[in-house]
Amino acid sequence: MAFCIQLVLALLMLLVETAIAADIPKQKAPTMADVLAASKPGDWRALDPQRTLYVELASGRVVIELAPNFAPRHVANVKALARERYYDGLAIVRCQDNYVVQLADPDADKPQLKRKVHHAKATLPPEFECVLDPKLPFTRLPDGDVYAPEVGFTGGFPAARDPKTGKMWLVHCYGMVGAGRDAPADSGGGTELYVVIGHAPRHLDRNVTLLGRVVQGIELLSALPRGTGALGFYEKPQQRVPIRAIRVAADLPATERTALEVIITDAPIFQELIESRRNRREDWFHVQAGHIELCNVPIPVRPLSAQSARK
Amino acid sequence: MAFCIQLVLALLMLLVETAIAADIPKQKAPTMADVLAASKPGDWRALDPQRTLYVELASGRVVIELAPNFAPRHVANVKALARERYYDGLAIVRCQDNYVVQLADPDADKPQLKRKVHHAKATLPPEFECVLDPKLPFTRLPDGDVYAPEVGFTGGFPAARDPKTGKMWLVHCYGMVGAGRDAPADSGGGTELYVVIGHAPRHLDRNVTLLGRVVQGIELLSALPRGTGALGFYEKPQQRVPIRAIRVAADLPATERTALEVIITDAPIFQELIESRRNRREDWFHVQAGHIELCNVPIPVRPLSAQSARK
Repeated sequence: MAFCIQLVLALLMLLVETAIAADIPKQKAPTMADVLAASKPGDWRALDPQRTLYVELASGRVVIELAPNFAPRHVANVKALARERYYDGLAIVRCQDNYVVQLADPDADKPQLKRKVHHAKATLPPEFECVLDPKLPFTRLPDGDVYAPEVGFTGGFPAARDPKTGKMWLVHCYGMVGAGRDAPADSGGGTELYVVIGHAPRHLDRNVTLLGRVVQGIELLSALPRGTGALGFYEKPQQRVPIRAIRVAADLPATERTALEVIITDAPIFQELIESRRNRREDWFHVQAGHIELCNVPIPVRPLSAQSARK
Repeated sequence: MAFCIQLVLALLMLLVETAIAADIPKQKAPTMADVLAASKPGDWRALDPQRTLYVELASGRVVIELAPNFAPRHVANVKALARERYYDGLAIVRCQDNYVVQLADPDADKPQLKRKVHHAKATLPPEFECVLDPKLPFTRLPDGDVYAPEVGFTGGFPAARDPKTGKMWLVHCYGMVGAGRDAPADSGGGTELYVVIGHAPRHLDRNVTLLGRVVQGIELLSALPRGTGALGFYEKPQQRVPIRAIRVAADLPATERTALEVIITDAPIFQELIESRRNRREDWFHVQAGHIELCNVPIPVRPLSAQSARK
């Protein structure tokens, strides 16, 4: 009899606990808006102007954060190309739906007409992947990945790692920027750039050198008319979108820079943000996915606050 | 001694076989272009005009294939709404970058002004998921998925299944079409439609009723200017994109229909196509992914061939 009462009590306790467990997360777990509203200035970092590129179009400015941890030579070369004004007057020559836009020299195939490279390199050895640096912070996602053994974020970029090969690489999520190339692996180098504007084309991972990510102005690229030629190339010269200039932010006076700050993906707040997206607590949701795929995690960017600017 | 020779011979054979195995796929495995070029008329099916919707915009026609196997009541209701001309003169009211465009009544919140629903239903119970039908063909992907126990294709649509719950559901890949709703699960029904124009927002799976997929003309939606209001809503009425009409293809004379055929995802050719995309054999690729994620599998569509039209 005593045992029976104990059993009933235990079951009741279990019921109460279950009810609490079911209730609390629904009411208390923060949404992404809650996480951001509760963020502290130290959860954000200002863009480093030496690692920031501006693509100036008639429609506005596209801001790219560069990733020298993964592609040091390509990043240095793209900055060198920008500094010798290689890109100015070139164009967006391709816009393929659900895939990429491409910035290039429309006359790249014409030896007489093509833009000359002076101090920078015309091509570089590939930086498709690099040696896994265990000292680099890595906010690993708990839900796995179809393509890579480990995925997560480091320094503001989506990345993958393979402990077996000892390699790590950047991942082709929406907004990622890479160095276009021809068939030989060493035919890229940054004279041609592409930006992902569709569902993550992960088959490109480790096949092209990724070197950065668009942090503002992606819609100036993603909403462009699609090219009607093969692979989305514009068929008529007048359809191309002129590039007024590409500049390193540090080369502009501070007043002409776009003052932005990015959430620190290596800080605890980003873990909270990931959890808020794995299980969406907004009232609208009836089912919580309980999982998240790498390229569905947003990396918030906002205007630099006055407080952060003084840091 | 005899044993030793046998062992050496066996090892040599293994080496030769390994060398062959490593060589042959690289040279002989077909690319997607090869698979499509070798396809037979029986590998394709014409769109069924009773399951095809046309969204008529000033810029052209968006063709949607409907999915009555998953959302029979929503499909019937959207057809009924089209037939009573509910959509004609409404608008694309929202375009959120890397997410969705939304087709709706701009005055839906104004009781005096909002478009009336006559014979169709204004709202319906949700069809977020349905009972797993084991008789429905299912071309399952071998590489797993971050969100669902099983993913693959059935009848031309990306879908997920859970044998434990005995449910199946359509998946939010690029180009999928759903019935927008407010917070209550039964507040949708098709008076408001959305189309995915970004990286697959899989957290919406089983939270909204998907009812079809854009098979042609997605670029008329995906390249629209992004709305600058919250959630990508257009802030000024003149920014909205008018919907001239939405029609069921069967209601138009045959000469005014868009004659398309879609690859049969339940046929062996689609398995070959999937394999050609899991391991890209085009010369350009240096590393083959060896995997593919559901929303990266293309579902080819082409103009209806004269041969197929006679079938």
